[in-house]
Amino acid sequence: MDSLNATVITVSDRVSRGEAEDRSGPAAVRILNGLGFATELDVVSDGVEPVASALRQRIEDGVDLVVTTGGTGFGPRDLTPEATAPVIDRMAPGLVEAMRSATFGENPHGMLSRAIAGIAGSTLVINLPGSVTGVEESLAVIGPALSHAVELLKDRPTDHAASKSEHPE
Amino acid sequence: MDSLNATVITVSDRVSRGEAEDRSGPAAVRILNGLGFATELDVVSDGVEPVASALRQRIEDGVDLVVTTGGTGFGPRDLTPEATAPVIDRMAPGLVEAMRSATFGENPHGMLSRAIAGIAGSTLVINLPGSVTGVEESLAVIGPALSHAVELLKDRPTDHAASKSEHPE
Amino acid sequence: MDSLNATVITVSDRVSRGEAEDRSGPAAVRILNGLGFATELDVVSDGVEPVASALRQRIEDGVDLVVTTGGTGFGPRDLTPEATAPVIDRMAPGLVEAMRSATFGENPHGMLSRAIAGIAGSTLVINLPGSVTGVEESLAVIGPALSHAVELLKDRPTDHAASKSEHPE
Repeated sequence: MDSLNATVITVSDRVSRGEAEDRSGPAAVRILNGLGFATELDVVSDGVEPVASALRQRIEDGVDLVVTTGGTGFGPRDLTPEATAPVIDRMAPGLVEAMRSATFGENPHGMLSRAIAGIAGSTLVINLPGSVTGVEESLAVIGPALSHAVELLKDRPTDHAASKSEHPE
Repeated sequence: MDSLNATVITVSDRVSRGEAEDRSGPAAVRILNGLGFATELDVVSDGVEPVASALRQRIEDGVDLVVTTGGTGFGPRDLTPEATAPVIDRMAPGLVEAMRSATFGENPHGMLSRAIAGIAGSTLVINLPGSVTGVEESLAVIGPALSHAVELLKDRPTDHAASKSEHPE
Repeated sequence: MDSLNATVITVSDRVSRGEAEDRSGPAAVRILNGLGFATELDVVSDGVEPVASALRQRIEDGVDLVVTTGGTGFGPRDLTPEATAPVIDRMAPGLVEAMRSATFGENPHGMLSRAIAGIAGSTLVINLPGSVTGVEESLAVIGPALSHAVELLKDRPTDHAASKSEHPE
């Protein structure tokens, strides 16, 4: 198995201006490292253009997994899903449904996450919430599926049928 | 805190023609009043154009919350989600996922709701089912998140970072 | 009640080339027959064009229910949702949310299903996973809603209000 790599993109006006410390980004890096991903950290401001540019760059680089943190809520500057949707080739709704449904009945604000996830080329892109708790809870839910998901993306077409019969989704 | 306002739009051919009494609309008004929203009631016929027009009018009026009831099922005239999608700027899938998931394992017809939710300008738009029971059950699920959601939409950009650090989604 | 009919479309390069036995397709046929649908079986290769063509043919034929099996995962050739989305008039997200949510906390790979469902004309189209277990588990979840869903699609406009008041979604 090749080693897997990931990038965390912290989306925050205040962090990108140096007015606040980034806590959710490093939390995501720590967890993804623990899941076996060699993980880097980027910081961009809120808004469609900064986030979309950062995503496109990492997808072109062929990064296996790109995780954003922040910008998925209801505030006027929360535009991370709108920046993510246009770069996605194939939507993967189950990942964000699983993240959100873990909060139902527990935290009434979990249903306000507008996060999306999907595949762009051979990169898996996932929006996470902007709080440390949200990052931790979300990655606890989807973490067990991430390395398998990324390995499937790398399947060569000739390997695909065999892989599929072993891991049918 | 400014007072919050809402509009319920009953979507029903029969009610709009005076052939049936509107029960789900008044039920929604009653519940939203109880949640602190000063709530008005509109009635329109089924179909994309009547519903989309009513939504656009209320969004232009700057209403905080617009809730539809009816037209989210599988009948040929159930077109409320198709009328809603084009007026939405930012989708909010967690609200309808939460509404539907509360019915899974309980009521096999809950999974037939095609309701969507999202943000249009500074207005939150949510489709609810067309029955009194469906309205009551759905608002019991999402009610605890509604006033916070609407307050977030009103954030001025300069307030946003502070609000976000308090209520991270 | 008219008798209901269905088509299962097995989506698999290997099965369509005769290199593997189709097991998930016959499993779906067996279950749908048991649910009261007179069910036929098609086999096509992976990819947008073969799947979209097969779907369009069955929709034109006026088949009540078309179920695909396979091609909903993360492999490079898993394109069944991308073939399905363009033929759908009205999305029915609750069916696939219910299918996936039944796996949350049980099987971490369930959240990798990218299945979609929706209505095309008077045909209900649903993507299922490509394994026998995935087909069985998914149809166990949505089976109780299928015949009612298909009956609603057949509603004549003049019957609709009455039907709606009996079965409000």
